[in-house]
Amino acid sequence: MVKELLRVLPQEPIVYLGDTARVPYGNKSRETVMKFSTENVLFLLHHDVKLIVIACHTSSSFALSFLERHFRHPILGVIEPGVEMALKTTRSGRIGVIGTHATVGSQAYLHAFARRHAFAPHGPGVRVTQVACPLFVPLAEEGWISDPLALQVARRYLRPLQEARVDTLILGCTHYPLLKRVIAKVMGPKIVLIDSAQQVALKAKEILRDLGLLHPPSHLDGAPSRSRRSFPASLRRFFVTDEPRHFEELSIRFLGRRVGGVSKADVAKL
Amino acid sequence: MVKELLRVLPQEPIVYLGDTARVPYGNKSRETVMKFSTENVLFLLHHDVKLIVIACHTSSSFALSFLERHFRHPILGVIEPGVEMALKTTRSGRIGVIGTHATVGSQAYLHAFARRHAFAPHGPGVRVTQVACPLFVPLAEEGWISDPLALQVARRYLRPLQEARVDTLILGCTHYPLLKRVIAKVMGPKIVLIDSAQQVALKAKEILRDLGLLHPPSHLDGAPSRSRRSFPASLRRFFVTDEPRHFEELSIRFLGRRVGGVSKADVAKL
Repeated sequence: MVKELLRVLPQEPIVYLGDTARVPYGNKSRETVMKFSTENVLFLLHHDVKLIVIACHTSSSFALSFLERHFRHPILGVIEPGVEMALKTTRSGRIGVIGTHATVGSQAYLHAFARRHAFAPHGPGVRVTQVACPLFVPLAEEGWISDPLALQVARRYLRPLQEARVDTLILGCTHYPLLKRVIAKVMGPKIVLIDSAQQVALKAKEILRDLGLLHPPSHLDGAPSRSRRSFPASLRRFFVTDEPRHFEELSIRFLGRRVGGVSKADVAKL
Repeated sequence: MVKELLRVLPQEPIVYLGDTARVPYGNKSRETVMKFSTENVLFLLHHDVKLIVIACHTSSSFALSFLERHFRHPILGVIEPGVEMALKTTRSGRIGVIGTHATVGSQAYLHAFARRHAFAPHGPGVRVTQVACPLFVPLAEEGWISDPLALQVARRYLRPLQEARVDTLILGCTHYPLLKRVIAKVMGPKIVLIDSAQQVALKAKEILRDLGLLHPPSHLDGAPSRSRRSFPASLRRFFVTDEPRHFEELSIRFLGRRVGGVSKADVAKL
């Protein structure tokens, strides 16, 4: 998600918060995820952000509607943009969703499909098949992402989606894009895999533009135009709730590059 | 662990705390595990316990020495009792330890072996081989405990232990005893698997006896002698930090019976 935000909004200062001390959220209850998410949002607001992206699908499923209702700032989740893209992509109307137990159990995707569908009542019939794949996260964290074992686990989890003959599959958890290759191998070359990150970043840009909050390109600041590469990294601040050095190591896998200067955030105390 | 404590100390009132909102600890840093463990200990002390058992190996590895140093109450971890039992059991001196990344990385087992060994300098040479098995926890939680996939994962993780020809293997994580059958199948019938729970419960009893803190058997209370089965459950209180109903469902798998009346604990606020 951060990678996409950096790509789509290269001028924007970004404050990143990873709740590494309390992850994973995927087996936790609605109440606990709502509490943690609220604390995280308060931490980010405390750092003067103008828009918040919830990159976690479990948090988006359980906490987004509560947060949207109570905070003034625009808050974007990852469910709706994925649903929107899936509806644009599918030809057969048979769509699959994979996620954590919490995301699948929350029915957040089903509700989002139902809402979208009410707006487009003349669209084709849509049938959604959901499967929870809890072992995908530890497989990705173990780095077994193009491994015969990962393939077997994927074969077992994805069988109901093959049987449902979905033509579009939403990767409904931050870790799943790391297993893209294995998932594609099991599902076949014709199935479109949807990672909502790009959609979310575009949506964030659209909202900021509509609100007149887009960061002006650097040449408007009076400074000479700069390439993305030379844009000051100081405008990006990374916080985690567990020890930063763990995250700095993991960042290579998730962000494609090592992130330094990560700070520790105590989200429970503001 | 609770099962063993109930068996060995049937008269004792027990306050159980499961930090379900923040587990697993196995990939977290020393600092975070120390913070969480301290909060948990404070919560239990607030409930007037006379002795604390840390059933989690990661917490025992990272936090026990700190907690022992700072609190007056006796605090028991799971590392030393497992080491003691392994040293009694092994004939070849080749001992294996499996645990989380955090437990293995902490070197807590190696230090405990070194300490014990210094006390018994004429004992046989001991060689310890450690392996982190992070996928065992999600496999156990998924219920895939006697599954061909679990067997394959076990084969991969346990290979270094087979190569080291250990004759004794410490199951250094609360979840691993659930995979006992699969682990035994891979390691062969001659290897002794050590689950420290029983040792810890016996140690707890010994300490309480030495301190004169053992709960008197019920006939000494003036009440007629009662069988274990009819012992009032009110003397056992279960707390968890996530929603209790999740835990009530899981309790069947971990405690062998469904536990009701579980309360929610807010450990961060005392």
